[in-house]
Amino acid sequence: MSPSLSTIGFDADDTLWQNEYYFRLTEEHFTTLLADHGEPHILSSRLLEAERRNLQLYGYGIKGFTLSMIETAIEVTEGRVPTAVIQRILAAGREMLSHPVETLPHARETLEKLSGRYRIVLITKGDLFDQERKLAQSGLGDLFDAVEIVSEKSPQTYDRLFTRHGEGPARSMMVGNSLKSDVVPAIEAGSWGVYVPHELTWAMEHADEPVTASRFKRLAHLGELADLVEAIDRS
Amino acid sequence: MSPSLSTIGFDADDTLWQNEYYFRLTEEHFTTLLADHGEPHILSSRLLEAERRNLQLYGYGIKGFTLSMIETAIEVTEGRVPTAVIQRILAAGREMLSHPVETLPHARETLEKLSGRYRIVLITKGDLFDQERKLAQSGLGDLFDAVEIVSEKSPQTYDRLFTRHGEGPARSMMVGNSLKSDVVPAIEAGSWGVYVPHELTWAMEHADEPVTASRFKRLAHLGELADLVEAIDRS
Repeated sequence: MSPSLSTIGFDADDTLWQNEYYFRLTEEHFTTLLADHGEPHILSSRLLEAERRNLQLYGYGIKGFTLSMIETAIEVTEGRVPTAVIQRILAAGREMLSHPVETLPHARETLEKLSGRYRIVLITKGDLFDQERKLAQSGLGDLFDAVEIVSEKSPQTYDRLFTRHGEGPARSMMVGNSLKSDVVPAIEAGSWGVYVPHELTWAMEHADEPVTASRFKRLAHLGELADLVEAIDRS
Repeated sequence: MSPSLSTIGFDADDTLWQNEYYFRLTEEHFTTLLADHGEPHILSSRLLEAERRNLQLYGYGIKGFTLSMIETAIEVTEGRVPTAVIQRILAAGREMLSHPVETLPHARETLEKLSGRYRIVLITKGDLFDQERKLAQSGLGDLFDAVEIVSEKSPQTYDRLFTRHGEGPARSMMVGNSLKSDVVPAIEAGSWGVYVPHELTWAMEHADEPVTASRFKRLAHLGELADLVEAIDRS
């Protein structure tokens, strides 16, 4: 018999609400603005290069993405990008930052089922200011016992947070759409890692499924989570 | 006799390490780059306008500041800013994000004196990613019992944090260089608010000194803090 679960951590972007979709839309807009200077896939790959290069300085989030778009626009045009295009990139970034939050199917009902029975913790990377805005707008805030916005999701991060908000990693579960950030490091910390794929996942968040790990689970969608949790707690 | 202090909160930027100075240097560089398009004080005031306008979307930090500089450069030149200037603004932002951290006089010795005797909490606004970098670089990390990076410093923020990390706001003290963010809201929450002025403080952080508040104290520098704490604990 496993020790019962005390804490369930949820990723936010593309687990509870849409996120990557807006990045892709904005990237499409970006490639359209610069269509005279390259094929869309070339422009996208130049942009990804800039994002990778800047990740150590900018971290995650829309502001860094906007700065990387501006940098790429200057690069691919060899400095001939019209300022009107830069203004449109700035405006696209502001639109992303003010876009209404769209919660994903089953997010609310699943949190409502689990809330009160487990300690429910939102664990998300990214920009503090923007994540707090999205949480407030999502209307899901009251369903969480704690919110942790972190700069990196490592095994140490999960160990620390599941100790702070429960009985430690062995009695905790992390749920998210990123194998690399949500699932693999949580399993490494000794927790359950539950992968809920999203059709869009950022290129930098890919990793192989840890299929041989006994605490790895993959669900088709969040609506299957409550049954999984119950099955684990009865085993 | 007052109840003894349990927790001391410290602001970070311009309380423990230099920050505003680098913003001012970068702003000077910005006005030099655009010298053909206006007097420095006009360019600075246009930039501050952009920062104010964007604060609700960008929050605090260097990335938002960089985006506001780019926006202002386009505006004040009526779209004629050369892309080389925008590249230099981007580079200036990256330099700020990678600048070595310079701790302020008395910061380390004061934290060493108080650490272990009180719960010491870093409470800072701004960009999560950048603040974590600065804390790591400062070498002061081990002197804190907890680090809280928040999007806004309100009386509710202090009430919540001083309850989480101690015996509540009445037995806590907040120390910082911003009357508006560090001192006034902490006093409103029922804590001690200790003002340690820095010669440079951002225009948006100004407020009047709450001179009639019994729990307001003003120090010339951080080196006076340990004696103040002792005096309060003996009173």
